[in-house]
Amino acid sequence: MPSTAFDFAPLLPAGLPAPAAKWTGLAKYSFVGGNNDPDQVPVEGLIEAVDAVLRREGRTLATYGLASGPQGYRPLREFLTAKLKRDAGIDCAADDILIVSGSLQALDLVNATLLSRGDTVIVERDSYQGALNRLTRLGVNMVGIPLDQHGMRMDALAAALADLKGRGITPKYIYTIPTVQNPTGTILPEARRAELLKLSQAYGVPIFEDDCYADLIWDGKRPPAIYAMANNGGVIHIGSFSKSIAPALRVGFIVAPWALMSRMLALKTDAGSGALEQMVLSEYCAPHFSTHVPKLTRGLRAKLDTLMEALNEQFGTSAEFETPSGGIFLWVKLPDNVDTLKLYQSALAAGVAINPGPEWSTDKPYAGSRLRLCFASPSHEQIREGVAVLAEVCRREFGVPARIANVEARARTSI
Amino acid sequence: MPSTAFDFAPLLPAGLPAPAAKWTGLAKYSFVGGNNDPDQVPVEGLIEAVDAVLRREGRTLATYGLASGPQGYRPLREFLTAKLKRDAGIDCAADDILIVSGSLQALDLVNATLLSRGDTVIVERDSYQGALNRLTRLGVNMVGIPLDQHGMRMDALAAALADLKGRGITPKYIYTIPTVQNPTGTILPEARRAELLKLSQAYGVPIFEDDCYADLIWDGKRPPAIYAMANNGGVIHIGSFSKSIAPALRVGFIVAPWALMSRMLALKTDAGSGALEQMVLSEYCAPHFSTHVPKLTRGLRAKLDTLMEALNEQFGTSAEFETPSGGIFLWVKLPDNVDTLKLYQSALAAGVAINPGPEWSTDKPYAGSRLRLCFASPSHEQIREGVAVLAEVCRREFGVPARIANVEARARTSI
Repeated sequence: MPSTAFDFAPLLPAGLPAPAAKWTGLAKYSFVGGNNDPDQVPVEGLIEAVDAVLRREGRTLATYGLASGPQGYRPLREFLTAKLKRDAGIDCAADDILIVSGSLQALDLVNATLLSRGDTVIVERDSYQGALNRLTRLGVNMVGIPLDQHGMRMDALAAALADLKGRGITPKYIYTIPTVQNPTGTILPEARRAELLKLSQAYGVPIFEDDCYADLIWDGKRPPAIYAMANNGGVIHIGSFSKSIAPALRVGFIVAPWALMSRMLALKTDAGSGALEQMVLSEYCAPHFSTHVPKLTRGLRAKLDTLMEALNEQFGTSAEFETPSGGIFLWVKLPDNVDTLKLYQSALAAGVAINPGPEWSTDKPYAGSRLRLCFASPSHEQIREGVAVLAEVCRREFGVPARIANVEARARTSI
Repeated sequence: MPSTAFDFAPLLPAGLPAPAAKWTGLAKYSFVGGNNDPDQVPVEGLIEAVDAVLRREGRTLATYGLASGPQGYRPLREFLTAKLKRDAGIDCAADDILIVSGSLQALDLVNATLLSRGDTVIVERDSYQGALNRLTRLGVNMVGIPLDQHGMRMDALAAALADLKGRGITPKYIYTIPTVQNPTGTILPEARRAELLKLSQAYGVPIFEDDCYADLIWDGKRPPAIYAMANNGGVIHIGSFSKSIAPALRVGFIVAPWALMSRMLALKTDAGSGALEQMVLSEYCAPHFSTHVPKLTRGLRAKLDTLMEALNEQFGTSAEFETPSGGIFLWVKLPDNVDTLKLYQSALAAGVAINPGPEWSTDKPYAGSRLRLCFASPSHEQIREGVAVLAEVCRREFGVPARIANVEARARTSI
C-alpha cells in the first residue's frame, strides 16, 4: 500500500448502512436464508430445458429483453397467466405481469413507486426481514398488525386503520404474506381476505400481496389470491420462482394494474432481468411445474417433521410452535428469558445459524425470545445435529432447556 | 372495470418519472440499444457450458449466492482476475471483484455509495445515456468535459477541477469511459490516463472507470486500465459481459478497494445476481473468451464499414464522423440545422430508431445535430436500408442531404 492511499471516507454521504463484513462462508448448520433443498433442484430437467430453449432462441440473447419488451420474456409471462389462474384464481394477461430479478426487486419497485420518507405502511407484526429492512432504510413508519393461527387479525387491522385515519394518516399500503406467512407459516382464510378487501376499499389503502411461498403448501390447497378476489384493481400481487424451483435463479414477478405497472417500468432501469434464467424457467415450468412442486413439498414436509421432532427432543416444552401449513421455515417461541439476538451470536460461534426473532418483527420485545428456523437446506442429519448444538448453547447461556433431554439426544445423534 | 376502480394517483409520491408507454416492439431498422449481433451469440458453446456446469454444480442453485458469498460466483471472479490481468493490466484478487446484474447495477451501487442530491460529478461531455439519466434522477450536478479524437481533454479537466475548487466544490468522482468511449468511440491514450490520475490525486477526486466496451477494439490493442495504472486505490473499475458475449445475460462487475466494496455490498440487497448466468459465463469464457472476442470484433468492424459506406452514400458530406477504434456505435454530426430530437420522432414513424445526440450529452445545443447509431444488431442489409430511410426522412424534414445521393442509393438497395 502506498503511503498516499486514496481516502474515500470524506466522500461518503450521510446515512449509508454500516459496511459489510467479509464473508466467511456458510455456517455448518445453517437454518437461515430461505435456501432450498439441493437434492430437489431439478437439474436434469433444467439441463433439457436450457438446451432446447437455447437451440431454438439462443440468438435472441443478442437483444436486451429478448425482443419481448421491458416486461420480460413473453413465454414466461404466458406460463404465469396459466399458473396463476390454476393455482391462485387470478385472471390476468401477460401484459399485466412484470418479470423482475427476484421478489426483492419487486419490493424495491413497489416501494419506489409508492413511498416517500415519513410515509406510513401497515405490515404484519411478524414479517419478512427483507421487507422490514427496506422500509426502515426508506424511513417509512411501520404499523404492525398482530397475527393468530389464521394470519393477520382483521379486528386489529380495522382498529389500526381507524386510529390512523383519526390522526389524518393514510397508509400507503397494507403489506401481507397471506399464503404461508413468513415467519409464522399461517394461511389467511378466504373470509379474512374478503374482510381485508373491504377495509382496503373503505380506507383507500391498497393491498400489497406477497405470495412468494404460496406454492409450498402441504395439502396443495389454498384460498384464492387476494388479487383474484378484488374487483377494484387495488391489489399488487408478487411472486417468485425462488421457493418452487431454485433461489439462486433470481426471477420473480409482479401483477399490477397498468396505472402502477407503467410507473414501475419507468423505475426499472436495469435493461431487463436475466434472460437466460427467464428462458430456462419458462421452458422447464410449462411442462414440469405442476409435477415438480408436489414432490418438492413432500420432501420439505419430511424435513419439517424432522425439525419439529428434534426440537421436541432437545428442547421439550421449552420450544413452542404451531405446525406451519407449508413453506420452509418454523417460527419458534423459547422461554421469555431467552434473548434470541444473544443466542444468535453464541449459536453462530458454535456453527449454528438462526434468524433471531427481533429481525423478523416490528415488535422487538414480543419477538425477543422467538426465532425463525429454515429447514429446507440442511439435511435431516444436519437438522438433528444442529438443533442439538443449538439446545446446548441455549442451555449454557440461558439455562433452558433442561439438561436431561439434551444428553439423551446427544447420545443418539452421535451414533 | 367496476365503477369504484381503485385510484392509485393520490398515493404516488412527488418526483416520480413519467409513466412508461406500452411497448410496441422493436423498430424495423433499430440503430439503438447497445444490442449485439445475433449471428455472433456463441449458442453452441453456451449450450455445452451450461450442460457441463449444471451437471457438476446444479444442486448449488438451491443456495443463494451458490455458496460463493455475496460477491458472486467465485469461478467467474477467478476468470475475471486472469482476464483483467491479461487484457487491462489489472492486478486484483477474486475478493476485489463484485459481480453485479449488468453494469447498470454497477452504476447504481457506485452512485448510492458516493452521491447525495446536490452533489457534483465530472463526466465526459458526451457520455452514456444510462449514466447521465441516473445522475439527473439523483439530482446530481454534472460538469461535462469536452472530448477530442483522443478522449477526454485533460486541459479542460484541469480547468474544471480548478474552477470547482475555487468555488469550494469537491466533485464526488470523475466518470470516464476511456476505452472505446460511448458515444465517441475514442480511446484515451496512456499519457492522458497518467495525467488524469495526477489530477485525481491532486484534487482528491476518485476516478470511476467504465470499461464496458473495452473488449471490442479492432486491433485488439489497448492501453492499461486506469485502475491498473493507479497506485493509490482511488479508481473504481467496472465492466460487463454484455458487449463481449450477450447483452440479455445481465452480468457485469465492479473492481474496487474494500473501503468502497464493503459499502456497496451493504447496499446490494438483491440476494445475489443471477446464478445461472454467472455459471454459464464462467464455464464458457474460461476456455473460449479469447478466441470468441476477436471473431466478434471482426464481424462488428465489417458492419461498421457497411454503416460508414451507407452514410457516405446516402448523406455525402452532410454526415461527419470519425472512425471509432472499436465498439458498436458511431457518433455522427449532421448539419447544424438538423434537430436530431425531431429527426428521432420522424425516423421512428418511418421504422428507423436512432439515439438523438442530446440524450447522450451534457451539452444539449452542442449535441443537437448529432446522433448515435448502433450497428451491431441490424444486418448489413438492414443497415443499408435503414440509413437510406433515415436520409429520406432527414431530407424531407431538414432539406439535407441533397436528393441526388439518396436516389442513387435507393435504386441500389432495392435490388
